[in-house]
Amino acid sequence: MKEKKIVEFLKRNFRSKKAVLGIGDDCAVIDYSKNYYLILTTDCLVEDVHFEKGKINFYQLGKKAIAVNISDIAAMGGLPKYALVSLGLPKVNLEVIKDLTRGIKEMCKKYKFEIIGGNLSRAEKIFIDIFMVGIVEKKYLKTRNNVKVNDFIYVTGFLGASQIKKQFNLNPPIFEIRTLIKKYKITGMIDISDGLSSDLIKLAESSKVGFKLYLEKIPISKEAKRISKDEFEAIEHALNDGEDYEILFTTNQEIPKNIKKVKVTKIGEIIKEKKYLGIYRDKVLKIEDKGFSHF
Amino acid sequence: MKEKKIVEFLKRNFRSKKAVLGIGDDCAVIDYSKNYYLILTTDCLVEDVHFEKGKINFYQLGKKAIAVNISDIAAMGGLPKYALVSLGLPKVNLEVIKDLTRGIKEMCKKYKFEIIGGNLSRAEKIFIDIFMVGIVEKKYLKTRNNVKVNDFIYVTGFLGASQIKKQFNLNPPIFEIRTLIKKYKITGMIDISDGLSSDLIKLAESSKVGFKLYLEKIPISKEAKRISKDEFEAIEHALNDGEDYEILFTTNQEIPKNIKKVKVTKIGEIIKEKKYLGIYRDKVLKIEDKGFSHF
Repeated sequence: MKEKKIVEFLKRNFRSKKAVLGIGDDCAVIDYSKNYYLILTTDCLVEDVHFEKGKINFYQLGKKAIAVNISDIAAMGGLPKYALVSLGLPKVNLEVIKDLTRGIKEMCKKYKFEIIGGNLSRAEKIFIDIFMVGIVEKKYLKTRNNVKVNDFIYVTGFLGASQIKKQFNLNPPIFEIRTLIKKYKITGMIDISDGLSSDLIKLAESSKVGFKLYLEKIPISKEAKRISKDEFEAIEHALNDGEDYEILFTTNQEIPKNIKKVKVTKIGEIIKEKKYLGIYRDKVLKIEDKGFSHF
Repeated sequence: MKEKKIVEFLKRNFRSKKAVLGIGDDCAVIDYSKNYYLILTTDCLVEDVHFEKGKINFYQLGKKAIAVNISDIAAMGGLPKYALVSLGLPKVNLEVIKDLTRGIKEMCKKYKFEIIGGNLSRAEKIFIDIFMVGIVEKKYLKTRNNVKVNDFIYVTGFLGASQIKKQFNLNPPIFEIRTLIKKYKITGMIDISDGLSSDLIKLAESSKVGFKLYLEKIPISKEAKRISKDEFEAIEHALNDGEDYEILFTTNQEIPKNIKKVKVTKIGEIIKEKKYLGIYRDKVLKIEDKGFSHF
């Protein structure tokens, strides 16, 4: 709630006149050429908040730092082009830099972008902050504020308990999303970083609509199922855990169950009334940011 | 020395094929339109490294975080257009955000750019990381690697002891630099963040030249004079303190002593031999990164 208030404050204070899209979506959008926009995003991993020093290696950390930014680029329909890496380290250590570099280079190759700059700061706690520049055809730009009433809600992959399996092996489905947006009329997109409940509410708020989620249809990860005592608990993991880095999108078309190797699942529909509903075995629940409440 | 090794390692590992200029200058440069480049930079302020929590307010911190990035844009000959702000805070605090916003907005107005995005992370120690996008006419782009033998070396403003007076009131002379580059044939530029000795050596290394500095000509700040027991100590402050955020540039032309209200001083010349020399009362000293050594 507090974060929302802050984003609202920043939106009000930093209205952009020159950008196509300023604060408030997965990326900022600026004009580039006749047919293209540039899209800009930043996301940061901080020691003891996003990772614990002893539990990861820097190769994995480099990969993850890139992946969370690629996910934002994917959610706008774009492709990554360039990135700058701003690093905070307790002491300058060439071994750490080498491991990070190996992880980041692997991602550069896989996702076809280049590192063109950065900064190195001393910092008591490690942080790795990425600034990514992507590109998107104007006709393919996807935002949060164009979702239409009666659209279906879809999600890629499987959700929940990502901390167990995926934490350092994220593969944002960016190329599959590109295939999707070229073939179908996608109205809205957002990546799932905070959690399905939280990010779907953001999408609905931006477009001034409501939604009805079929809770039993949500694709639940094996890990979430394994750690849950029953179906409902597993659904709660899928709704609220976050860090899935899958893509949530809306369209009024029927989408195949797979785009290349990525599973796509219809999980609900958009409604006119600004209510956030979850249907579970004929019961209607109220979906909240990271939770439920009963009517 | 260690930092240099790391930058060399990163340059080798992240060679860019698509960018005009990758790692190794004040900004990265990418193609934008027929007549313009985009220039990208990132610089970060970290608690207990660049500032102490009790000694500053967030209004000042916001201003400084922007200024150090404006300085990098100035050193390429460009103007700022857009910025993203990535913030690490121990807890989300609207009052802190308001003060930071006030400082940043003041800079947006003064330097004519817009904030179009950002990120908010929890972090034990505060950091404020800025990603800035600037623009420069292709014909006016200034880099570190085009300095010519026999060029004169100039510097804007006054150097040394910036911690005392200027620490939170930086005014990178970006508009004066624009006037300068439109009127004179400037061959190389770099901003003074690490210190005159250190940054001039970087400039010379990039252009594979040497230099001869007239140490008595260096414009020394009042503060550096005040805290020094003699002229030589004051010169040492001006050479090595850093954080001046003035601009160092080279040209074979005679430049007036003032550009608008900013003082410009000729402090040396470029030589073919890759030696870094300082002349002081007929003695020749060897200039090192943050120091001297006698021959």
